[in-house]
Amino acid sequence: MNDIDTETLKGIANQLRIHSINATTAAGSGHPTSCCSAADVVAALFFGHMRFDPKNPHFHNNDRFILSKGHAAPLLYAAWAEAGLFPTEELLKLRQLGSDLEGHPTPRLPFADVATGSLGQGLAVGVGMALCARLDNLDYRTYVLMGDGECAEGAVWEAASLAGINQLNNLIAIVDVNRLGQSQETAFGHNLSIYKKRFEAFGWRTEEIDGHDLDEITEVLAAVGLGAQPLVILAKTLKGAGISFIQDKEGWHGKPLSQEEAARAIAELQPTAKSGIGHPIQPPHQSPAPKNEAPASYPPINYKLGDLVATREAFGAALLRLGEADTRIVALDGDTKNSTYSEKFFKKFPNRSTECFIAEQNMVGVATGFSARASTFACFFSRAYDQIRVAGISMANVKIVGSHVGVSIGEDGPSQMGLEDLAMMRAIAGSVVLYPGDAVSTEKLMDQMAAKKGICFLRTSRPKTPVIYNNDEQFPIGGAKVLRQSPGDKITVVAAGVTLNEALKAAETLKSEGIGITVIDAYSVKPLARDVIKAAAQKTNNLVLTVEDHYPEGGLGDAVAGELSADGVKVHKLAVFELPHSGKPEELLAKYGIDASAIAKKIKSLV
Amino acid sequence: MNDIDTETLKGIANQLRIHSINATTAAGSGHPTSCCSAADVVAALFFGHMRFDPKNPHFHNNDRFILSKGHAAPLLYAAWAEAGLFPTEELLKLRQLGSDLEGHPTPRLPFADVATGSLGQGLAVGVGMALCARLDNLDYRTYVLMGDGECAEGAVWEAASLAGINQLNNLIAIVDVNRLGQSQETAFGHNLSIYKKRFEAFGWRTEEIDGHDLDEITEVLAAVGLGAQPLVILAKTLKGAGISFIQDKEGWHGKPLSQEEAARAIAELQPTAKSGIGHPIQPPHQSPAPKNEAPASYPPINYKLGDLVATREAFGAALLRLGEADTRIVALDGDTKNSTYSEKFFKKFPNRSTECFIAEQNMVGVATGFSARASTFACFFSRAYDQIRVAGISMANVKIVGSHVGVSIGEDGPSQMGLEDLAMMRAIAGSVVLYPGDAVSTEKLMDQMAAKKGICFLRTSRPKTPVIYNNDEQFPIGGAKVLRQSPGDKITVVAAGVTLNEALKAAETLKSEGIGITVIDAYSVKPLARDVIKAAAQKTNNLVLTVEDHYPEGGLGDAVAGELSADGVKVHKLAVFELPHSGKPEELLAKYGIDASAIAKKIKSLV
Repeated sequence: MNDIDTETLKGIANQLRIHSINATTAAGSGHPTSCCSAADVVAALFFGHMRFDPKNPHFHNNDRFILSKGHAAPLLYAAWAEAGLFPTEELLKLRQLGSDLEGHPTPRLPFADVATGSLGQGLAVGVGMALCARLDNLDYRTYVLMGDGECAEGAVWEAASLAGINQLNNLIAIVDVNRLGQSQETAFGHNLSIYKKRFEAFGWRTEEIDGHDLDEITEVLAAVGLGAQPLVILAKTLKGAGISFIQDKEGWHGKPLSQEEAARAIAELQPTAKSGIGHPIQPPHQSPAPKNEAPASYPPINYKLGDLVATREAFGAALLRLGEADTRIVALDGDTKNSTYSEKFFKKFPNRSTECFIAEQNMVGVATGFSARASTFACFFSRAYDQIRVAGISMANVKIVGSHVGVSIGEDGPSQMGLEDLAMMRAIAGSVVLYPGDAVSTEKLMDQMAAKKGICFLRTSRPKTPVIYNNDEQFPIGGAKVLRQSPGDKITVVAAGVTLNEALKAAETLKSEGIGITVIDAYSVKPLARDVIKAAAQKTNNLVLTVEDHYPEGGLGDAVAGELSADGVKVHKLAVFELPHSGKPEELLAKYGIDASAIAKKIKSLV
Repeated sequence: MNDIDTETLKGIANQLRIHSINATTAAGSGHPTSCCSAADVVAALFFGHMRFDPKNPHFHNNDRFILSKGHAAPLLYAAWAEAGLFPTEELLKLRQLGSDLEGHPTPRLPFADVATGSLGQGLAVGVGMALCARLDNLDYRTYVLMGDGECAEGAVWEAASLAGINQLNNLIAIVDVNRLGQSQETAFGHNLSIYKKRFEAFGWRTEEIDGHDLDEITEVLAAVGLGAQPLVILAKTLKGAGISFIQDKEGWHGKPLSQEEAARAIAELQPTAKSGIGHPIQPPHQSPAPKNEAPASYPPINYKLGDLVATREAFGAALLRLGEADTRIVALDGDTKNSTYSEKFFKKFPNRSTECFIAEQNMVGVATGFSARASTFACFFSRAYDQIRVAGISMANVKIVGSHVGVSIGEDGPSQMGLEDLAMMRAIAGSVVLYPGDAVSTEKLMDQMAAKKGICFLRTSRPKTPVIYNNDEQFPIGGAKVLRQSPGDKITVVAAGVTLNEALKAAETLKSEGIGITVIDAYSVKPLARDVIKAAAQKTNNLVLTVEDHYPEGGLGDAVAGELSADGVKVHKLAVFELPHSGKPEELLAKYGIDASAIAKKIKSLV
């Protein structure tokens, strides 16, 4: 607790309000009233309580602060400016093109660990950070500031539950209960007891305070960390607090003040406003930084050509192998680890494994907080698509492995089949999308993902497929393998995963009938090996056939056509063209026209 | 309450267990132990409590039953067979290709209103049905059977919250607390008090029972509907109950019994097993069916060419206009109705509007339950992607409107920009994806969506664009408009939404420089008007340029290339090729290369 009196803290809070108003009025857009309700809490946290080095926002043992209600960005920016990180004049560049002070915080800013603005996601990331602190033996605390409206998001309760289960007493949530949502009052207004009951039921300690009373705020912060449970501070506040003619009035969400209104508001706040600059901030403890070096190399693999191994099994083996070499790797599961095969890692490294239970949104958020590796069925990652989208904006170092893709899972039926995941994951900013067809390529691509920073998605299949590569084959991201090629080939077939196996079988059949085809393993769907495919296509009269265990929209076929049609390559697509049913895997591959027989038939119709 | 004693109900429960074991053993896959834990509850519901006509599963006033823990499908199928809907011999066709009895229930079956199997989604659909019952003045009740593991899903708590807020005492949830998840024990085992506290905190009445004691089950069911709150029955059960050598043992999730194990299990169950066939089921009340006729026509629109109207505003006007003509239309919002403009409908028809607050997953689930119309920012529908995927599998009649698409929203920044939504929505089985560029086409496409059954997604933009169509122009789904075309045109530009406006501006500029271009409004992204685009392209040397306010993956460009590259059409793409920043809308369109100037520049480089 800093040596600073509450009158000064109140003054700083009003200075933060003034900055928020000025910036949003200058920008002509933004959320000043959402900033005003939380200003006292933020002032108390930054200048009276949190332990961090304002000149070094990335210091490993800084207390973490996540602005889950990301639209209050101007408040966050103002706090860091007043803490001395950058000149307060910069604040007026809010929302301008070329300024890092965007409408909602992104990690282009050194003090924003995750992009916020899609509500309800901050707490999961906080859970990841709190778990990470334990793993790394660091005593930093993680503070997550949420809005009351955003507590309607199920993702908040997924995170709350896991925090309670893991007794994360190094995690503190603050809910800015300002009563007013965007288009109307929230469901519960200022009835804090409803939030209290909910958080208590989820295993949290709760404190209810007047969010504008700096004495109450500082008192409750002094008791942070006591007891075994995570703490939520429920702060009753007024939206637009500090501005007499706006506070607690409907219709002011997301509205900047006019020049004239801003002048009136600032006239009310200025007399008590105080600068935060120069006030000492409590420094973090100088604990040793966690090891952060990649291992010199990963252990080798040892598969036999022709062995039948499902790529999901190879994933499990790879995760374990990598985990043995690299102690920074942690794994997350959504109660599918016996199916995805992450359980091998879970058994060997229980301290580095987190069971997230059946809550995929939270799992992805926790992964972002950890910058970790998460796996479940590919289709269930659609549950977490907003979290994945935000992880993309956050440039998080998250590896996502989705198993049970396509109709080839068989009898479980469409609810368990990933048929949209290539489309989903290709559209994520900066993502890498990988789709190995055998055990060797799976393991090698896991090595690649481990070494690559950013969001990577790897697709694994349920059925066993033959090992077709030697153990020393390399699989660079963005590459492809030309597996069959002869002069006079009539068409280039581009496949991946189970359809690669089918394409190779078709190649044999067609060869015996005098029709040569080129077969390419497009294990890297994004980035796509466009030059390899183009070169092969040009030798086959610019004719390409893509085959994928996925819907036709947005997947491998669209990727190839989207990149190469401009070069005159003609791309025909085989994919799952209708909503599929339960059945045996081989039956379904045939029924939905992506097995060896269908490939051969299609090729004959084209050449 | 039926006139049936608990001993008979127990017998029927054991018969349902026998069916579940036989079917999954015959299939070689499935979840018999998950069926066994819930069999007593299901027997009591179907044969001792619910009011429905087993020969007429679609009767409008049947009690609804949603198997949210969809992997217990064999149990559901057995219940309907024993209720007399189809011969019990059919049950052995579980999971066979060609059988409607798939691995998880889909609405190909008349008694499954929604596809389940992706856990945590059933309660939201139940909320929609319960709300619908009130709106339609019907007294049916909605029962949702969930697993304990699936209560980790945030979607359950979103639904629970809205049910509590709306005091849906016609909604009954049953949680089958069998302690064991898929890969390990759940977080709370048999500690029912944790679930009790949570549901109470969310506004529910709770009852705790022994889920294998038919007296307790029937007693608690007798009190359904009392009081103002929704009711949750927490049933303590054993996974695999009834099979002495399996029940309550780990490692049995999703495992069929071997032939030999099945014989042993059935030997234990057979002595007390009783058929349900012939036992009378309580019929539903013969209340009048709600009106279900489409209006003869929709009211006309009246825009002036050249007026500046944002398509989001036109959406709001259209929703109101349609709502006035068609009383079946209901609207849902996620606290963005003042931005999406659904608030006009909300003000006029409050009884037909449901504020779902900041909980998009639930909103989509409720929409499925209602078969309704839901709107929020397009990017926030990524939060509900699994629900949308499942609505696709369910062939639900849901209209989804996503606003604030692309960089053209401006200063709010990337967390609020829909840049992946075309990819997302194209990949949904059976979806229609529409993207109007002006107010008239927006309104007309709303009419089209209202008349079309199935999942439809409409993309609206934040900025104002000029009205370019006459009020009597028609916009069939699957169509496109050729807006500029002259002999000698050098390239065909395919655009939609804000980029249509930009393309038209570019056309003027280029025309004055002696370069003619064809401009097509591809307002129907899926299904795509491939023939129109192809015909135009063939007149421009097979050269096409697509322009979209969306990432390059999976959107308009991929759609055109994916469909037409096989015909030799060369497709060049303009899109948002990097993670965008905050800025003014015009600045961002320019910076990310999709404004009129960028279009003209790209064309000159190509021709």
